[in-house]
Amino acid sequence: MKAFQDFYAEDFSHCYGCGSLNEHGHQIKSYWEGEESVAKYLPKKYHTAIPGYVYGGLLASLIDCHSTGTAAAASYKFENREMDTEPVLRFVTGSLKVDYLAPTPMGVELEIRGKVIEVTPKKAVVESRILAGDVVCAKGYVVAVRMPASMMKK
Amino acid sequence: MKAFQDFYAEDFSHCYGCGSLNEHGHQIKSYWEGEESVAKYLPKKYHTAIPGYVYGGLLASLIDCHSTGTAAAASYKFENREMDTEPVLRFVTGSLKVDYLAPTPMGVELEIRGKVIEVTPKKAVVESRILAGDVVCAKGYVVAVRMPASMMKK
Repeated sequence: MKAFQDFYAEDFSHCYGCGSLNEHGHQIKSYWEGEESVAKYLPKKYHTAIPGYVYGGLLASLIDCHSTGTAAAASYKFENREMDTEPVLRFVTGSLKVDYLAPTPMGVELEIRGKVIEVTPKKAVVESRILAGDVVCAKGYVVAVRMPASMMKK
Repeated sequence: MKAFQDFYAEDFSHCYGCGSLNEHGHQIKSYWEGEESVAKYLPKKYHTAIPGYVYGGLLASLIDCHSTGTAAAASYKFENREMDTEPVLRFVTGSLKVDYLAPTPMGVELEIRGKVIEVTPKKAVVESRILAGDVVCAKGYVVAVRMPASMMKK
């Protein structure tokens, strides 16, 4: 099954969070699972906050990319189109809010689960949560804005 | 001049965003400049969003660590103490909000400037902005929570 990010054209595949061509980045992959979108990520051992816990900036990054990817996928759905059809829909982050609810343990594969709250032709709002096992460690709220044509040109 | 982060004990110097002992991390350094706190950071060339622009997750990370560092420094100030005195004050992020106002260009040293909005014995609120030259690219709002004693023990 192709992830949302696998449909991104080469120019959009350099993102540090989700670009498959960014060898230094997180390369997250997001999929639908029913009405929710899901990505999984095992933090690297240097992604520490204080020893034993995951760095909050990484969690913000995971929420960011998973949400813009979910926004794109939801917008294709909204237009009743497959993700490999034209015109291409890409999103940038307008705003990002993260509430840190519990310390996130290292050494556990994290699950990022997104729910689409709103889709319009100009934006999408995605709420998400990061789970370590059954524990919700962080909640995210992202307003993703459809990328203007000027940024999509080379 | 020592940065806020230079006062962190070894156990608190592994943070991916600001730990001087994390060789993979950003190692940001924050200082007072009058009433504002300032840090500077030149994104690595792989910190891309789409080519030419900086990845938003990195900006969130810079805001996060600069704000918790500023929260600590402001709390020592509030208690009329130097940062090398006991008891040690460290902060974790309770919530983080970032508004992305303009695309952030690559190849420019960014300036993160923080303002302390509120300090209490339990938390501090820091507003910040990220500048690329004269352009404010992002604004941040962080509620930093004083680290509980249980997290500060080994």
